[in-house]
Formats: sequence, structure tokens, C-alpha cells
Amino acid sequence: MALIVQKFGGTSVGSIEKIRAVAERVLKERQAGHRMIVVLSAMAGETDRLIGLARQMQHIPDPRELDMLVSTGEQVSIALFAMAVKGAGYDAVSLLGDQVAIHTDQMHTRARIDSIDADRINRYLDQGKIVTVAGFQGVSDNGDITTLGRGGSDTTAVALAAALHADACEIFTDVAGVFTTDPGIYDKARKIDYISYEEMLELASLGAKVLDIRAVSMAKRFKVPVHVRSTFGNTIGTWVVDEEKIMESMLVSGITYSKKEARITVKKVPDQPGIAAKVFLPISDAGILVDMIIQNAHEGGLTDMTFTVPKADYERAMEILHKVAREIQAQTVTGDQEIAKISIVGLGMRNHAGIASTMFQIMSREGINMMMVSTSEIKVSVVIAEKYTELAVRALHDAFALDKENLPQEEVD
Amino acid sequence: MALIVQKFGGTSVGSIEKIRAVAERVLKERQAGHRMIVVLSAMAGETDRLIGLARQMQHIPDPRELDMLVSTGEQVSIALFAMAVKGAGYDAVSLLGDQVAIHTDQMHTRARIDSIDADRINRYLDQGKIVTVAGFQGVSDNGDITTLGRGGSDTTAVALAAALHADACEIFTDVAGVFTTDPGIYDKARKIDYISYEEMLELASLGAKVLDIRAVSMAKRFKVPVHVRSTFGNTIGTWVVDEEKIMESMLVSGITYSKKEARITVKKVPDQPGIAAKVFLPISDAGILVDMIIQNAHEGGLTDMTFTVPKADYERAMEILHKVAREIQAQTVTGDQEIAKISIVGLGMRNHAGIASTMFQIMSREGINMMMVSTSEIKVSVVIAEKYTELAVRALHDAFALDKENLPQEEVD
Repeated sequence: MALIVQKFGGTSVGSIEKIRAVAERVLKERQAGHRMIVVLSAMAGETDRLIGLARQMQHIPDPRELDMLVSTGEQVSIALFAMAVKGAGYDAVSLLGDQVAIHTDQMHTRARIDSIDADRINRYLDQGKIVTVAGFQGVSDNGDITTLGRGGSDTTAVALAAALHADACEIFTDVAGVFTTDPGIYDKARKIDYISYEEMLELASLGAKVLDIRAVSMAKRFKVPVHVRSTFGNTIGTWVVDEEKIMESMLVSGITYSKKEARITVKKVPDQPGIAAKVFLPISDAGILVDMIIQNAHEGGLTDMTFTVPKADYERAMEILHKVAREIQAQTVTGDQEIAKISIVGLGMRNHAGIASTMFQIMSREGINMMMVSTSEIKVSVVIAEKYTELAVRALHDAFALDKENLPQEEVD
Repeated sequence: MALIVQKFGGTSVGSIEKIRAVAERVLKERQAGHRMIVVLSAMAGETDRLIGLARQMQHIPDPRELDMLVSTGEQVSIALFAMAVKGAGYDAVSLLGDQVAIHTDQMHTRARIDSIDADRINRYLDQGKIVTVAGFQGVSDNGDITTLGRGGSDTTAVALAAALHADACEIFTDVAGVFTTDPGIYDKARKIDYISYEEMLELASLGAKVLDIRAVSMAKRFKVPVHVRSTFGNTIGTWVVDEEKIMESMLVSGITYSKKEARITVKKVPDQPGIAAKVFLPISDAGILVDMIIQNAHEGGLTDMTFTVPKADYERAMEILHKVAREIQAQTVTGDQEIAKISIVGLGMRNHAGIASTMFQIMSREGINMMMVSTSEIKVSVVIAEKYTELAVRALHDAFALDKENLPQEEVD
């Protein structure tokens, strides 16, 4: 008899019929003797509807009141789910974040979980109840409802699994698992059976949207085995587990891309100590996230600073930087929104220095110019012109033979 | 500087624009220096929508989960209201039943308030905040969300006014106040300026839907002055106050009618001790409310039992009674759904025995047969054929001169 946490997202609970189908799925596990905790998101579209109401009411909705408002979405889902279970003749009980209690800090709309009380859930589980918990929400020290930000229901599920020492945390989604790359771009993309937390972190942060990055990070910290799988059908998805559980690591596990960033260069900056802070401080003060940063020294004490920012913040960043450039007497600021970031991720890279060079060879062979390169222990990212995205992804996928079975590969070079 | 509780119903907060209008109205009181507590219902139609979802999910929705579900309606209203106030540059904070806290028993979907903590609200009021509280909901001892049943927001408002020793509790509704009779039936109906709790209790229980009966009962107990008034415009409505505050009581304050009941007669029942229980116990066991009861003795130890039940329960009641009649060897069971109950209510009746006889005279003059009569200290009710409803109401309204100013009247006879 295992303790299993299952999380279902908004599309999985988007209607009465779908919630009933989720209940039937959960009941099969219950009938198999497992203790079940079910974390639900709001019904598809509900959170956006509520945020829309808030924005109509107040230009920038008050964060505390916004949490009070949007947290109703998950509350509706868990109540209906509990009714579905009871209607099927089993016992269930729904719990809100403050009823569990899921304690968070007071940062409304993006709160972090401090601790979770396991007592009440354990008591209900001992009574044979299926416990359904509202995802995405918690309670602050002063009793206010907080929310964990978008994707927060994944975090709720993993945190509950950690606090209750669950045997597994299953994240149900509308895709079959984690793929070697976006199947929408390349039909040879293959589902990955096992992937390490570290790799998943890189994939999640690079835009593979199957699992929230904070959830992965928490799963890693508490070694919670996470199973990402499809709500539709009963196929095995991808297990995100501790590195040690994976017999042999792939050189490269997956290839991701992002078209959501823009590149900015501040040209011929006088190269003095503290100059980088003068450039980046106003950007971060404006709440703009800078991703890749590259600095090229010119002769004569001048340097070019190139970095990427989210496309949505591009205009604001340019405005700020033109002002900064005048102040620090840089020559000019240029930008490019027609870029894509392609990344290869794999634990195996650690021991194989050739991965990056293989990547560069492939790009060169395809005639794709690399504007920026950045590497981490298990990742290599390059920025290229947006129009080459598909070409690059497919060529790299072939080169690293990611369509082949999940066995250790030889280095390609 | 007064402490005022204002309650707005579903139609008053039925849209973003309407909630904003409510905020503006509340802010006027705030600007006049008053401390404001605002109790809100769910946006019009929302509670019904949620109950609809619940019924789709489970034939008879689980009461605890139903409360979990429908309580989201008020939560949405108060969050949006707080945003509206903040958007207008004032401070506000929204509180749920459990955040206040409003402690109730555990009778889900029809919980009763046990006590209210005033501390948190007082602290916020001291900080200059407008405090908005979700109507209709509370929290049970084990931390579950409870709801007070339909009309529960009125009760929330009066209970808060009592607990916080508010100077007034204003119930905003879509009518201008309490009328001498239904203006839809008789255009001479006049708004009543002052009415006692006792009279209001009789009026509320007789179907005048402006104010929930439990709210009136609580207002009476804690002597909370209640002002029933229209959301639209700024006219004075009806003050429901302690009897002693009303200089001179009207003989008759109002005339109400109800077409929601049916009449049933069990004929020629053997008149033995305990026979009434045998008739009524199965009815009350089925959850059917019996209102007026009349018993007429025949010769030869037989008796007729006549009583009224809600029309909605008529078929069920008839089914049960046919069975009962066979068991107790009563002759037959007859029923009539085409009836109406007409009632006159007034504190002044206590000292004027002639009221009932005046009523009977009028009915006789108009040729209306009275099938049943029942009286209480401040009320006389008669059951007549439904088709005479309007005729009876108008004739009685004229006879007691209810269209005249709010001065003591002479008895008419």
C-alpha cells in the first residue's frame, strides 16, 4: 500500500465530465489499496476569468485581494471532485491551503511554502478518505490566503508529497511526458523514460512547460520521485528522479528552444570597475530578468556588453539602456528581437568535453551563425537567428541520436 | 462617528459596475467619518450556477462539500469590492467567515452562528480600513466552512452589528423598504417608516421577502436597529426597531399573502388520544413543514383534520397521508392547491379585540369564503380560494386605511 499524490491541471478538470473522469482514475488507485492525495488546479479558464474581473476593477489589482479572488478557482474544483468521489460511493474530503495548513510567507501572488502540517491529512487518510487539496494556495502567518504564482499547483503537489513522505508524486498533464525535444517541431522527438532532477531543472527553466521549475527544485531537495504523465490514457510518462536512480546517464537528454527572448548590446562601454552594475542595476530595478550575459573586450579600454531579456520587456529595457548609455558614455545600444535560444541538456555532459564542440560543428555544418554561447555543467545554450530554430533543433536531435532508445550513447564527433 | 454595518445582496453586486457603485456609496459614509463594515452576497446568479454544478456532479450534493463550493461566491464579491475601494484611493480589507471568525455549529448548508470574534475587525477599523465580510458563511469548530442557508447574508450583517455593537445595520435591497402590502398587487401600498421586530417577524415569516426571518429574530434579541432600504437612490427605507422606540403602534401594519401552500383534509378520523401524532409524524419525518392546523369534531367520535403544507410538498404529503388514512381507518383524504393565505399583522391588535371581527366582516362583505382561520398575538391569517387573493388584499388594505400616513388609526367597525 503506497501513499500517492496526484496532481491534475486545469484542462484535466475543465468540466463536470472531466472531473468525474479524474475521480474514476483516482478511484482505481484507491481500489488497488493506495492512500490518495489529489491536488487540483482551477477549472480551465477560471483563473484567467477571475484575473480579468480583477483588472476591470482595479488597474493593478491589490495582491492580497487578488489572492482572495483567484484562490476560489481551486476551491470550486476540489469541492466538485469530492462530490464526484462521494457520488461514486467512496469517501473524500476537500481541504483548502489554510485547512491543511500549508504555511507560506506573505508575498502575495508569489508566496513560498515554509512548512506543511501533515496531521489533518494523515487523520483523514487513516479514516480511508481520499483527500483532495486546493493547489496553488497557502496561508500566511496572519491568516491571509496566499497563492504560489502560476504553476503553483505542481509545487503544492510536490510539497505535500515531501511533507507526507509519499511514495510518488504524479503530475498529470496534457502531454505524455518529457520529450527529447518539442514534438511539434520535430516528429522524431521521443518520450524520455527517466530524467534526473538536474536535467529537468534545466529543461523546465528553458521553457519545457510540463513541470513548474519550483516544483522540480523542491522535488530535488526532498528527493520526491515525480511522474509526469498524460491525463488521457494509462501510458507511463517520464519519471523525474534522483541522479543515482538512473543507471547510466544520457550524454544529451533533450533539446529545448525559446523564442521568448530578445538580445541587446551596449556598445563600446568604458571598461571600468563597477560599470556592469551601472548597466544592469537599472534593468533589475525595473523588474526585468536578464538571462545570458556576454562581455567582449575591445582594444582601448572599451567593451561590448551583450545580454538577453524577455521579449515582453524589450521596449522598456531599450528605453532604460539608452539613458544609461548616455550616462556612462557608451557609444550606442542595439537590439534584436528575431532570435531564438537553443539548448542541449544532459547529465552526461559533465564527463564529455566534446558535447559543446559537436554542437558547434552541427551549427556550422548547417550554416547557422551563433550570436551568443553560454554553458553550465549540464547545458549548452546558443542564441541564433529565430528563423533557424526548427533547422537547428532537428539537426541537433539527429546528431545526438535522441530518437533512439533510452540507452547510453556514444559521443558523436 | 458611528459604526455602521451595510449589507448588499446579489443584485446590488451583480457586475463590476454595480460593485463599483456600492463602493462609492460606502465611501460617502466613510468620508462622513463613519466606521464601515460591508457584508456582501455572491454576485447575482453565481450561487445558483454553483449549486447547478454541484447537482450535475452528485444527485444530492454532500453538504460539507456544497458549503466549500458555494462559499466561493461571496469570496469573489468581497475581493472585488476591496479592490474597488482601493482603486478609489481608500483602504479596505476583505475577510472570510473563518478569518473574522464567525463561529457556527456544524450543520452544513444551514448552520447557526454561535459567536463572532470582534478583535480582527476592530483592529482593521482602528487602522482606518473599510472591512468587507463575506456574507452567508462561517466556520465550524473543526475548521470546515459552513453556510447559513439562503438569506444568510442578512443574518451575517445583523450578527456582526450585534457583536461589534454597531449603531445601525443597513440592509440594501431592490425594494424601497417594507410596505403595507405587495405594491404589485395594490398600488395604494405604502412604505412603512418604522416597524417593530415582532411585526417584522410575522411579515417575514409570511412571505415578505425583504429581510430574512433569522436576521430579524437576531436583531430583536440583540436590539440591533435595522434599516431596510433601496440600493438605488438615497431615500430612507423602513427602520425595524424595538417596540419601545415606536411612539404609537399601528393597529394593523401590513397585509401579506402567500400562494405557496396547499390545504389537505383527512376526513372522519377516529378521535383517539395520540391520533394527531399518527397523522403528523410521518409528514414531519419526510421533512414537510405543516403550517396551519384545524381540527373539527364530528359526532360519533370522528374528527376532520385540516392543515396546510408547502405546494412543493403537496404530492408527497398526499401519498403519505393516503397510506396513513388506511392505517388509522380514516374515511378519506382530500386536498386543494388553489388556495391563498391572507394575513394581517400589527402590534396594535393586542389591545383591540375587534381586529379579527373587522377582517371577517370585510371578507363576508366581499363574498369570500374563509376555509381556515388562525390567530396569534399580533396576526390573523385566513385561508381563502386563490382567485380572491387580490380582492381580499385590497379590501383589507382599504378597510384598515393602510394607505394613510403612519399615525395611529381608529378601529374600523
